[in-house]
Amino acid sequence: MTEIAGSIVAPRGFRASGVFCDIKRLGTGQGSEKGAKRDLALMVSDVPAAVAGTFTTNQTCAAPVRVCVERVARGQAQAILANSGNANACTGKQGLKDALEMARFTERALALPAGMALVGSTGRIGVTLPMDHVRAGIIEAVVELGNTPTHADHAMEAIMTSDTRPKQAALEFSFRGKSARLGGICKGAGMIQPGMSLSGKRPAAAPLHATMLCFITTDAAIQAGPLRAALEQAVANSFNRLSVDGDMSTNDTVLVLANGLSSPKFDVRNSKSPEFGVFRAALSRLCLELAKMIVRDGEGVSRFVTVRVKGAKSFAEADAAARAVANSALVKTSWHGGDPNWGRILAALGSSPATILEGKVDLGYSAPGSRQILWSLKRGQPTAAPFAELCAAVAPREFDLHLHLNAGRAEALFYAADLTEAYVQFNKGDVSDPASLGG
Amino acid sequence: MTEIAGSIVAPRGFRASGVFCDIKRLGTGQGSEKGAKRDLALMVSDVPAAVAGTFTTNQTCAAPVRVCVERVARGQAQAILANSGNANACTGKQGLKDALEMARFTERALALPAGMALVGSTGRIGVTLPMDHVRAGIIEAVVELGNTPTHADHAMEAIMTSDTRPKQAALEFSFRGKSARLGGICKGAGMIQPGMSLSGKRPAAAPLHATMLCFITTDAAIQAGPLRAALEQAVANSFNRLSVDGDMSTNDTVLVLANGLSSPKFDVRNSKSPEFGVFRAALSRLCLELAKMIVRDGEGVSRFVTVRVKGAKSFAEADAAARAVANSALVKTSWHGGDPNWGRILAALGSSPATILEGKVDLGYSAPGSRQILWSLKRGQPTAAPFAELCAAVAPREFDLHLHLNAGRAEALFYAADLTEAYVQFNKGDVSDPASLGG
Repeated sequence: MTEIAGSIVAPRGFRASGVFCDIKRLGTGQGSEKGAKRDLALMVSDVPAAVAGTFTTNQTCAAPVRVCVERVARGQAQAILANSGNANACTGKQGLKDALEMARFTERALALPAGMALVGSTGRIGVTLPMDHVRAGIIEAVVELGNTPTHADHAMEAIMTSDTRPKQAALEFSFRGKSARLGGICKGAGMIQPGMSLSGKRPAAAPLHATMLCFITTDAAIQAGPLRAALEQAVANSFNRLSVDGDMSTNDTVLVLANGLSSPKFDVRNSKSPEFGVFRAALSRLCLELAKMIVRDGEGVSRFVTVRVKGAKSFAEADAAARAVANSALVKTSWHGGDPNWGRILAALGSSPATILEGKVDLGYSAPGSRQILWSLKRGQPTAAPFAELCAAVAPREFDLHLHLNAGRAEALFYAADLTEAYVQFNKGDVSDPASLGG
Repeated sequence: MTEIAGSIVAPRGFRASGVFCDIKRLGTGQGSEKGAKRDLALMVSDVPAAVAGTFTTNQTCAAPVRVCVERVARGQAQAILANSGNANACTGKQGLKDALEMARFTERALALPAGMALVGSTGRIGVTLPMDHVRAGIIEAVVELGNTPTHADHAMEAIMTSDTRPKQAALEFSFRGKSARLGGICKGAGMIQPGMSLSGKRPAAAPLHATMLCFITTDAAIQAGPLRAALEQAVANSFNRLSVDGDMSTNDTVLVLANGLSSPKFDVRNSKSPEFGVFRAALSRLCLELAKMIVRDGEGVSRFVTVRVKGAKSFAEADAAARAVANSALVKTSWHGGDPNWGRILAALGSSPATILEGKVDLGYSAPGSRQILWSLKRGQPTAAPFAELCAAVAPREFDLHLHLNAGRAEALFYAADLTEAYVQFNKGDVSDPASLGG
């Protein structure tokens, strides 16, 4: 696998655009030439593509999610329209009508058959969309479509909300002389702890909880069934394993379009073929890279911590233990302070549903991905590691926290962030400016 | 019921004291005359008393909790020794030895039979106690015992950590011409979402999560069995229904001593007698008053919100819905900002395990305890209430949030706090001062 430029237009046969259509009704007029931040993204495959998606399991799910869940089930799509500035969530019947109209107007503007366009939204909750602006935007977005990296950059910009940086990646993978490409753009920042499933229905046993949107393109040839299987695993190990603030959004959506236009064709015949393994590994890597970008650029985030739990009784317990630590306000503020506070970590573990034997827990720190661990606790007891060294281990912007429960053989990892004054400052909003408020 | 002065020494036959014995080893010497904050409290009944307690269900529970769980089961006690500055949690076998020594040394100093003293600790996690300081402190505390409100004030001061205000109350209740008194002191501030049970074992179905310590005295005559029953219900409706930061402590403890010395005797013969109902109501009221003081004085707290969920399918669902809202970082920051953000509240509800039908939810605000509700949403749709009025409804330091799910008949309420920059500032600590760190 090789990382390449171009994000969503790196695979053959995809075009993209991003325009400004004043979704927030700022009253600054429309047209992206005016220098305002773009707010409407369009991604189109030259031919019908296989599609798969995962969606928030929040019961208060937004209208675009409802539309996508139904359309993605058909297994085929050709275009994705996504806006920022308005989540079209908690907007009732009008919201659902608007989401459907977004899809249908896109289909007409692109001369696609009915049902081939998908939609995504992020931004304020509880406000209906300015559909006249959206329709004008769709027409401009169709005109602006192109396949240069700049076109992908425009689409990327259009889905950003509180993101401070664009999040995009592409890679090329090959097997037996045939190669294909995968590209993706995503956005995150706040309301971030996705818990997505293929159906938007919550798996009974799964723990939960962004708005994160992610749109992926590939020119591999793969049917909707194996594409779903590959996406489900990729999301389980990436977007569903991160938390910025523990709040699950109403709009979380990952969509992947596979148009089969790589040449020679990279054909994933079924989920038992070696090509499937290669494709799935590539998709998993792309999703993980994009997921980590979301945590690093979370609202107010100053530290990125990979929580690595080992020795749990079951995966469910390992996962619960990792999430309890990752979502503890006291642990997160100690990370912000550069404080190697193991007492708060043990307290968070002990309050989780996982089986914790205090006298068996090992707790240590390493550089990201390193096996050279500085242990702070061994079997529940402080080691001889000097306080200054422990402080140095948690001082970098990124580090790994190792938690060995020594109660079983299961493990889980989780991508976590600190909790800062900047997060509170950003999210307390400004009631003198109602437009700044909302989900 | 009448509120009276004197807190834990208001009931007959109780004495208290609070001294400084330098638990944190600040090196400023010992003796409370030196003006340092007191850190060791002693409460003693003149005669053996019936006892009941509830304890943290955190698996990483502190040594004093382990000692109390065992001793309280015997049903009788006469003294409680409690310190601040050190939680004696995550301190292994030495911690357990020290907690037992605290109890035994207290018994010897008071000439009590073995097993009659209980212990409680709050403060740093993972540091063993300076037992020479503790023993000297116990001797001074015994000398200082007295039954004036000032003595109770000293005991109160000695259990405070990040609390900015003392938390104490007492009340008198009567039935058929016989009266008795209840008094209590408590501390809270951070690591506050208690989930206590009588045994320290977590009820399978109960949701969870301070250090909060609460010590209650009464001169009613009641056996340990009915006392346990009354305490369990009082705690379920008070301390177990509040959250400052969603973190459950290793040390949460509520203890009540009933010495039967009221005159004429207020005798609660069994849990079916009318006297039991009167006693239980009084204990519930005392616990609720003390619990609310904990939320109001939580670390960095600027707003106190009572979340009132109605119309849930079951109590478990009502409780889960209330906790999801009370612990959402985005909802809590919006309260801090005085932002009547219903989108975040619906998103938090939707991510909870409770059954939420978005189109059925009513959401409104009132003054504390008032039935005059300003509705923001009715059946999931914004009402005509002007934004300025909604802002005014969430501007006071205290207000009620009403959430009617309209899916069933169960209800639950929960005492919640906002999330402020001050909370983050306080808890990120100062690594240049290791003594400031810890649980």
